Amino acid sequence: MSKVKCRIAVVAPASSISQQVADKVRALAGSLYPDGGMEIFFHPQCFLSHGHFAGNDDTRARAFLDVANDDAYDAVWFARGGYGSCRIVEEVIFGLKEPSKRKTYLGYSDGGALLAALYSVGFEATAHGPMAQDILRDGGDVAIKRALAWMVERAPETLEPAVSGSHKTAAFNITVLSHLLGTPLQPNLDGHVLMLEEVSEAMYRIDRSLFHITSEPGIRRVAGIMLGRCSDITPNKPDFGINEEEVARYWCDKSGIPWLGRADIGHDANNKIVPFGSATRVSTRA
Amino acid sequence: MSKVKCRIAVVAPASSISQQVADKVRALAGSLYPDGGMEIFFHPQCFLSHGHFAGNDDTRARAFLDVANDDAYDAVWFARGGYGSCRIVEEVIFGLKEPSKRKTYLGYSDGGALLAALYSVGFEATAHGPMAQDILRDGGDVAIKRALAWMVERAPETLEPAVSGSHKTAAFNITVLSHLLGTPLQPNLDGHVLMLEEVSEAMYRIDRSLFHITSEPGIRRVAGIMLGRCSDITPNKPDFGINEEEVARYWCDKSGIPWLGRADIGHDANNKIVPFGSATRVSTRA
Repeated sequence: MSKVKCRIAVVAPASSISQQVADKVRALAGSLYPDGGMEIFFHPQCFLSHGHFAGNDDTRARAFLDVANDDAYDAVWFARGGYGSCRIVEEVIFGLKEPSKRKTYLGYSDGGALLAALYSVGFEATAHGPMAQDILRDGGDVAIKRALAWMVERAPETLEPAVSGSHKTAAFNITVLSHLLGTPLQPNLDGHVLMLEEVSEAMYRIDRSLFHITSEPGIRRVAGIMLGRCSDITPNKPDFGINEEEVARYWCDKSGIPWLGRADIGHDANNKIVPFGSATRVSTRA
Repeated sequence: MSKVKCRIAVVAPASSISQQVADKVRALAGSLYPDGGMEIFFHPQCFLSHGHFAGNDDTRARAFLDVANDDAYDAVWFARGGYGSCRIVEEVIFGLKEPSKRKTYLGYSDGGALLAALYSVGFEATAHGPMAQDILRDGGDVAIKRALAWMVERAPETLEPAVSGSHKTAAFNITVLSHLLGTPLQPNLDGHVLMLEEVSEAMYRIDRSLFHITSEPGIRRVAGIMLGRCSDITPNKPDFGINEEEVARYWCDKSGIPWLGRADIGHDANNKIVPFGSATRVSTRA
């Protein structure tokens, strides 16, 4: 474990969080790292509200760049998903300065648009994993502890078990990845184990998104697909007839992409860390 | 008006229709063309039920090919949208024989996946317009009359007003087009006036899909975007703050795609016909 203090900055590229979330996370972090081995800073932008978003696009992009470009921080931690990251990706990517490259970036769900872009431009410590808002989930403390243990110590037990030195990895929300396909934000996932998860979508939408993902020629060059949890599936009228694993197997079979089984990720407290790229590349703090 | 009888075959590439829909459409068609200038055949597959779909994938693909490859029919009319066309596109496209090329194809919504593929492989009379199921809408008779008038006579008053000889055109459901981007099914829309419509989606989803569509480099080569109706928009929590036209204008502005105003298409009885490609190309029956 590093003796150097890890300074984590939280920003909200999509939806806002409450002060209560920040207070809970700070309290838990203080109890986990009583020696002051880490510090968490919640950017005030996290608590703003602008319609659907935690502040308007400019405000969210500026906040992200504030902390990404500031040498005072070691990690940029996404406060929450929701919706809005895709609206600020361009401004963020073109505004990144040299200090941003040395940092860890952690988030998932809607944040996948930003993670994809950061990974595409060569950032070496970008990962799919729990966010601050997850403290409100059942057992959410465990998710926060896992996120901190990865950002502060690169603790190996935080990783999804399939993360190893033998394959590159990547993880995405199914709907979010679908909405990047064909754009300059689509990452090169050749040879990666691609883990996918979903929440609050009807089964026909999951089917349609997996048709899309597995039909894209770049995605067909992945090493294989693993399916995380698909939770809170909304009613399908009429019943779709097959479940999410059968759907994923169907599209893997049809597209020739290897089916690699289930992944331990999802919109829940058990959501494990999946670094983008080679696990060895991010085995020490960036 | 052609004196040659127009023979229309109805198939259901996605969801099924009821016998009642077929009866109503046949009765209306008989009253509109009492001289026997047209005939409608409902493939029995239209009435099948297999989970979400009007028969399983093989059954739906075979039914489509039955009528597309049969010289006895002049037009293939999609019975209904729903979901499922993307699951049979590959089988359909690889199963098409020579007689299929001389036919008219008409549908919209989920059927956009098939229309895109038919247009991509060079079929010259493919159009976005009302389907048999639309007879159940308020004023649905008008939609059916319009569809028949286009299939039978190429009646110019059936066309969306922006359809002219000066630009190629294409029309899609927003979500359906989004799910084709980056795949081999994405049509070449360079220089086209692209009309888009939506139904039953939350505003944040419309925003995300328009981010996707306007970020794709091929789509950026369209002549411009026109927005059809976005109906039955589901609640956005919190309120999204801007409406569908503001969303579309935002993404056109950001992407540099010309905003060309509103289009007279949508999930309603007023849904006008939009041929794919050059309007002059489809001015006579294929």
